[in-house]
Amino acid sequence: MTSDRLQQQLEFIVEIDKLKHVIRRNYLVDSSRRENDGEHSWHIAIAAMILAEYSDEPVNLSRVIKMLLVHDIVEIDAGDTFAYDTDGHADKDVREQRAADRLFGLLPDDQAEELRELWDEFEALATAEARFARAVDMLMPMLHNYHSNGKGWRENGVVSDQVLNRQQQIGKASSALWEFGQTLVAQAIEEGALPSTDQ
Amino acid sequence: MTSDRLQQQLEFIVEIDKLKHVIRRNYLVDSSRRENDGEHSWHIAIAAMILAEYSDEPVNLSRVIKMLLVHDIVEIDAGDTFAYDTDGHADKDVREQRAADRLFGLLPDDQAEELRELWDEFEALATAEARFARAVDMLMPMLHNYHSNGKGWRENGVVSDQVLNRQQQIGKASSALWEFGQTLVAQAIEEGALPSTDQ
Repeated sequence: MTSDRLQQQLEFIVEIDKLKHVIRRNYLVDSSRRENDGEHSWHIAIAAMILAEYSDEPVNLSRVIKMLLVHDIVEIDAGDTFAYDTDGHADKDVREQRAADRLFGLLPDDQAEELRELWDEFEALATAEARFARAVDMLMPMLHNYHSNGKGWRENGVVSDQVLNRQQQIGKASSALWEFGQTLVAQAIEEGALPSTDQ
Repeated sequence: MTSDRLQQQLEFIVEIDKLKHVIRRNYLVDSSRRENDGEHSWHIAIAAMILAEYSDEPVNLSRVIKMLLVHDIVEIDAGDTFAYDTDGHADKDVREQRAADRLFGLLPDDQAEELRELWDEFEALATAEARFARAVDMLMPMLHNYHSNGKGWRENGVVSDQVLNRQQQIGKASSALWEFGQTLVAQAIEEGALPSTDQ
């Protein structure tokens, strides 16, 4: 006899398999295809493990990792909103809140609450953990875009100031990673991977 | 100026993007395509978060999650060895040790050692954390196969006793999850998703 509690937990686990079908704008490093949210969530969780020492404030790494494992689940219902899509961002909050209600609501109440808190914390950027998690989430597509010769940027008409303006959030968590991010943008411009705003 | 240390860390992070190209035998829940190791690693890390309460021994969940994020990275070089492939298992250890040397060796020494220890611990099943991590790693393909109507099992000629014999390892970490696993196999046989050994 499988308990109701375990049934609910397994239903959630099976449902979130759909995150592997949510396709992001950026490409894999070898440009072969666009990335999905499931594999992205693994990659940034391990990136946070490796880069935690660069957080300007001390962080509870375990909480950062959990936040990153959970952070995109709402996109199963709400879809991926491209970073530079102003229209898409207009109703993003409403779509994502509704998605969080349904998806985390599949879990037993205590775990629904735990995951919702992780996601709310990530969205609000109110803690050092959330700010560092967001910094890693912002750094990764820059790395992907740079290494795939700017394919994702160029396909979407993104120019250098947009990247710099948006990604300066990285600097609120890590001056070292933001310094690296700016170096990467400068290199990307020089190598023709990212059109400069001034051109 | 990006430090040598950060350069090494970023090189590792970019290199492990290749895990998204390592394709497993099992399908996604909706049967649309086979799963890759990157998205699998995300899925089992979050499954471990949700199912940790079923470990028969107390576990440090943070360590379980880190282990699961790292556990398949060696397959970038060594490839995915199918659970029921006896020939493939003959030289699996040699291939994977060599892969671990190269891949974790990209990192600064202290982190290379940290990740290698996590992977060695997972492989050796010597701790409660490793045994629980392995149990979740074994449960997930059963869930995937069951929900995709046994597609992965049937394509590879797997029969029920093979699943039961191999996956009984789950019972060494969690009697509740192994009880569920056995129920799932019985249901899969009844629904024609998994050929019974007796037929």
